[in-house]
Amino acid sequence: MSDSLRIGLAGLGVVGGGVLKLLAQQRPLLQSRSGCRLEVVAVSARERGRDRAADISSLKWYDNALDLAGDGDIDVVCELIGGADGVALELSQAALGNGKHLVTANKALLAHHGNSLARLAEDGALNLGYEAAVAGGIPIIKGLREGLAANSFSGVYGILNGTCNYILTEMRDGVRAGSPRDFDTVLKEAQELGYAEADPSTDVDGVDAAHKLALLTSLVFGCPVDFAAVRIEGIRHINPLDIRFAEELGYRVKLLGVSRASAAGIEQSVHPCMVPERAAIAHVDGVLNAVVTEGDFVGTTTFEGPGAGAGPTASAVISDLVDIARGLVLPTFGVAVSELVARPSAPPGSHVGSYYIRLMVVDRPGVIADIAACLRDQEVSVESMLQHGRRPDEAVPVVLTTHVAEEEALARALGAMGELNTVLETPRMIRIVNL
Amino acid sequence: MSDSLRIGLAGLGVVGGGVLKLLAQQRPLLQSRSGCRLEVVAVSARERGRDRAADISSLKWYDNALDLAGDGDIDVVCELIGGADGVALELSQAALGNGKHLVTANKALLAHHGNSLARLAEDGALNLGYEAAVAGGIPIIKGLREGLAANSFSGVYGILNGTCNYILTEMRDGVRAGSPRDFDTVLKEAQELGYAEADPSTDVDGVDAAHKLALLTSLVFGCPVDFAAVRIEGIRHINPLDIRFAEELGYRVKLLGVSRASAAGIEQSVHPCMVPERAAIAHVDGVLNAVVTEGDFVGTTTFEGPGAGAGPTASAVISDLVDIARGLVLPTFGVAVSELVARPSAPPGSHVGSYYIRLMVVDRPGVIADIAACLRDQEVSVESMLQHGRRPDEAVPVVLTTHVAEEEALARALGAMGELNTVLETPRMIRIVNL
Repeated sequence: MSDSLRIGLAGLGVVGGGVLKLLAQQRPLLQSRSGCRLEVVAVSARERGRDRAADISSLKWYDNALDLAGDGDIDVVCELIGGADGVALELSQAALGNGKHLVTANKALLAHHGNSLARLAEDGALNLGYEAAVAGGIPIIKGLREGLAANSFSGVYGILNGTCNYILTEMRDGVRAGSPRDFDTVLKEAQELGYAEADPSTDVDGVDAAHKLALLTSLVFGCPVDFAAVRIEGIRHINPLDIRFAEELGYRVKLLGVSRASAAGIEQSVHPCMVPERAAIAHVDGVLNAVVTEGDFVGTTTFEGPGAGAGPTASAVISDLVDIARGLVLPTFGVAVSELVARPSAPPGSHVGSYYIRLMVVDRPGVIADIAACLRDQEVSVESMLQHGRRPDEAVPVVLTTHVAEEEALARALGAMGELNTVLETPRMIRIVNL
Repeated sequence: MSDSLRIGLAGLGVVGGGVLKLLAQQRPLLQSRSGCRLEVVAVSARERGRDRAADISSLKWYDNALDLAGDGDIDVVCELIGGADGVALELSQAALGNGKHLVTANKALLAHHGNSLARLAEDGALNLGYEAAVAGGIPIIKGLREGLAANSFSGVYGILNGTCNYILTEMRDGVRAGSPRDFDTVLKEAQELGYAEADPSTDVDGVDAAHKLALLTSLVFGCPVDFAAVRIEGIRHINPLDIRFAEELGYRVKLLGVSRASAAGIEQSVHPCMVPERAAIAHVDGVLNAVVTEGDFVGTTTFEGPGAGAGPTASAVISDLVDIARGLVLPTFGVAVSELVARPSAPPGSHVGSYYIRLMVVDRPGVIADIAACLRDQEVSVESMLQHGRRPDEAVPVVLTTHVAEEEALARALGAMGELNTVLETPRMIRIVNL
């Protein structure tokens, strides 16, 4: 590596602006740590004339981001455009194809095209840095790919979406304060505060968390990225009632990405989960993210920190640049592409765990017996049952938790319950994750 | 780097045994991740004939560990002997002096000789890996030196000693269960369980945590290691009463290593602290460790995991070996030795924070007024006061918490309180750390 690392920056939104600001503010520090100057030499963004926090007048400007990939003065392209396809993909391919390192914050891109981009990087002996793509400022990619490299992992799970965690935290605060608010109300507030997008679906439907989980899975299990295998459920259906019952049972409701290896294969899922109050991850609130891994030698480790925002994301992007400046070139997913081993995906329903079930029933003798029979018929055993108050012949919520069972059996039991005359709404199920 | 990394292992105790076991068990995985074979070619330990978990009969044996440094077949020496001086120091110097990388789990060695060893490593363009020296299996050295390298830090703090954290957790459990146990009782149990050494002083007096803190300070602030500047207080004087009051006030008592930069200089201290229940670190219990850092761009990040034991420590040692196998050579403390800048140490008493004070007083009108006057005279303002029950003219504990004040002023106030006739024991103070 020469005495300067020449960066081409594509995208000058919140993150791109943060990167410019960080580079300007920490110039001597970064030079001292990386042993070379990190210099942005060219930029590309949608509107050149727009007012920006950083002065870009001295930098080479490209209207077309793809031109960065062809600029011989650039060592590394920093892709901060976003989107799974289109310019982001073309630029990434062209940059690696032209012998430039790539740093990206784009989880959608890597979830869909990570395997082919990793191969391009490897063919050119280039580094593909994506620390900013997962869990924002938390250095979890480095933690897994290098820090815990001596371990074989049985699982990884995490709170990977700050928007969902913020909404669930607010809903819980409402319940605790005695003024429960439903999902839509809290979502609207989150949008007003800038914690949720105008179109929140990528976040609240779990897709963003699933993108990140697919990358973690690949790193942890040494398999190609398989985003299509992630089973995804968002948080729109979470009701303040569930949160109140969770409190009472000693749990917190969190949207978790979970990836586990079992005899049935690899299970990747993003689901709302009940986690025990005593678990570290239960206390990760608001827009924070956390990732927990289980390694055979190290045991359980937890990394927690800000999952989004200009500062944390810029911190992650620039850590990748510092790595490149220091000469580090690592296999994208921890091992050479040719050594990634595809593993079967665990069939739906093969998940084994315990469950929380909420039913709206008619308060009438025999109802609980009928429900219990549905579970017994599938050999699912009940751990606890809660019904508050008595309102004969009216609708009341009933909550059950089960012992460990196959999700398939549970689904059949829920189906049978749904058929009962005394069960008024589709039964709700939330997985219990006993960390 | 060739296709194998040849390791000379000094010390075959718990950690050395763990390293051999891990290398044997994860052979294909490590080769796949590091791109080369990690091979122990020679060992040295106290007794050759001793029964060991791992078979060492095929390995070259040296009675004198120093001979590892002279063996031309060795690329990296793994120092797992321990001790701040003696063989560990001589071996480390000789290994680096002879062009071999060094990996060590030895915090005492680095706390005392880290600066000169870092220079030796740098002179030889060698890597000095010490992930296992701080917080066991948690990859915190990598996290700070690489993952968060884009940040300027205002502070780092952590639970750095599992023995102390175990004892404090047990004492709290006792208080909560209504059967408080004092320090000595819990220490004895910890010794029986193998969580504390026969001579526990290095742990319970805070020295081990201070060794680790001195290394974190250097990494975070880019200054030479200055172990002598760490102010150290252990946990022997922590009383179940303090733990009960902490619960009541919404705090947990933890032994924290804290390093902060202020106008007065760098403050390094290991102290029992009260941390708010809502802080992530408050829930790090038992033998776990955790490290929290505050970076200007990333914000607050927390790394948590097992702080000791054969498996976690071996995981850390071998992550350093994988780094070396991958060709990584980094400045030991994040920047070149010549760029480490010594910074003044904050004078004792310059700490600014809030405090918990426990007094044993005679229950008599006017006592609280006298105590309050001592604080007022030093311009320390009281935040809360607790006295349970009334026992006229008998001894009762009284607890106060203060608003933010200089420790020097507080010490003067405590001195004045100690002079009061109605105050029966030396007043006890615990810092409140508002994370």
